[in-house]
Amino acid sequence: MTIVGLGLMGGSLAAALSATRACARVIGVARRRSTLTTARSLRFIDEGTTSLTDGVREADMVVLCTPVSDIIAKITVLGDDLKTGCVLIDVGSTKSAICQAMNRLPPGVQPLGGHPMCGKETSGLTMAEPSLYRDRVFVLTPLERTSPAALAMGRALVAAVGARELILDPERHDRLVAIISHLPYLMAVSLVNGAETLAAEDPLAWALAAGGFRDTSRVAAGSLDMMMDILTTNREAVLRALSAAQGQLEELFRALDERDWDALAGLLEAARERRLEVFR
Amino acid sequence: MTIVGLGLMGGSLAAALSATRACARVIGVARRRSTLTTARSLRFIDEGTTSLTDGVREADMVVLCTPVSDIIAKITVLGDDLKTGCVLIDVGSTKSAICQAMNRLPPGVQPLGGHPMCGKETSGLTMAEPSLYRDRVFVLTPLERTSPAALAMGRALVAAVGARELILDPERHDRLVAIISHLPYLMAVSLVNGAETLAAEDPLAWALAAGGFRDTSRVAAGSLDMMMDILTTNREAVLRALSAAQGQLEELFRALDERDWDALAGLLEAARERRLEVFR
Repeated sequence: MTIVGLGLMGGSLAAALSATRACARVIGVARRRSTLTTARSLRFIDEGTTSLTDGVREADMVVLCTPVSDIIAKITVLGDDLKTGCVLIDVGSTKSAICQAMNRLPPGVQPLGGHPMCGKETSGLTMAEPSLYRDRVFVLTPLERTSPAALAMGRALVAAVGARELILDPERHDRLVAIISHLPYLMAVSLVNGAETLAAEDPLAWALAAGGFRDTSRVAAGSLDMMMDILTTNREAVLRALSAAQGQLEELFRALDERDWDALAGLLEAARERRLEVFR
Repeated sequence: MTIVGLGLMGGSLAAALSATRACARVIGVARRRSTLTTARSLRFIDEGTTSLTDGVREADMVVLCTPVSDIIAKITVLGDDLKTGCVLIDVGSTKSAICQAMNRLPPGVQPLGGHPMCGKETSGLTMAEPSLYRDRVFVLTPLERTSPAALAMGRALVAAVGARELILDPERHDRLVAIISHLPYLMAVSLVNGAETLAAEDPLAWALAAGGFRDTSRVAAGSLDMMMDILTTNREAVLRALSAAQGQLEELFRALDERDWDALAGLLEAARERRLEVFR
């Protein structure tokens, strides 16, 4: 098992697999030697290398745990380094663009898209923990060319880290995460930037910001590079989700503007009931 | 000291004042006898009554801790029951409409608007705790007619519960909370309702909702009655805040739609930096 990228996601994956001894050997690939030293001292990996080619050469399974754009870049250069039958999986946040790149891999490689639905605001190996994936949904997006045996390997990986598997096609995955992950991010960004335009007139606003603003804006602090990768590779689904939210804001604006209190209460109550239903 | 309304806010206020023995006597007013019994058994109040008139008659200070519309209703009927010099304060979430009602009180009463910036998703006396106000901002909005002595009483109350005082005029308070409290709520509502319109096509969306959606939508679960009170009494400032957020969503949509990646990254980075700056 080779894990490429030992940040929060890759480090936690290595930690979970090493803790349960699910793999004969866990090899880590990272850009920096210091990362490998840390991962070894934490017993997250058995061996480490800064060479992608060396790291993947003997692997039965390779998991790419870098940002989406880097995953796509690695897929395009990696094909000839993998041994025949190697299962290549990733943990990127969008799946269509990655699976399209995977489809161009040499026929001997078995590609499989993956997206564990977990993470933290903070990133890096020092934040990694073996329980990160536990009880979380781990989406697998097989390609048409993915063999049943390769999919079974992917499912075994999901089970080994304690996650719950969900098999989707890449496009459906991307439509779903646009709604429940990328849209919340853009709402949080709009909230912060909208508040900023108003707070420019009265900076005291920030002094009053309490729990409601903090929670609603939390994801706006996410990594710029990661979010740019996500938005550029999921543009159409995100635009559609944005439109839906814009339509809702317009309805709220109209009801409040026209003092249509029944309509306003209806919108608030619908959201309240759905929110309580989704999160117990 | 008479506290009218023994829910989360009033109960916690009574608890904090009783714990520190800041008042000679704390009298609670509630609609139900069972609430008074509970409050007494928790030692939050010294005495309780279901009669507003009886409860406030001897008080040097009365704090109204009910929803905004009920605070306004009580202010309009309470005036003649209060003794001369009584300081009447409230903890409602908007201040202009309440302070306008306070302005019509008999001249012997000393009114003072108040808004402690704290709360929980859950309400009720059973959730009350003496530390609810500790280290939170407690806004005081004096009226022109409020005497220095009455304001000093209000400041003493803020200090007694461990909160940080902030003195504002009612209109400025309402503009500020529209930005940092009411706007996040409406963004959360729009997120949930927007997601709902899309999830209608693929209900699996809700199964994938994780921490990002949960936090960004949390405040949408707030009390309908409380939020309707807030929005109806702060309509203009909220409409202005909504417009600002709508403008930001439009900018995000345009940048993504036109693949203007520099503009998109600029918007995301601005929000990220501001968010990180405001919360730590």
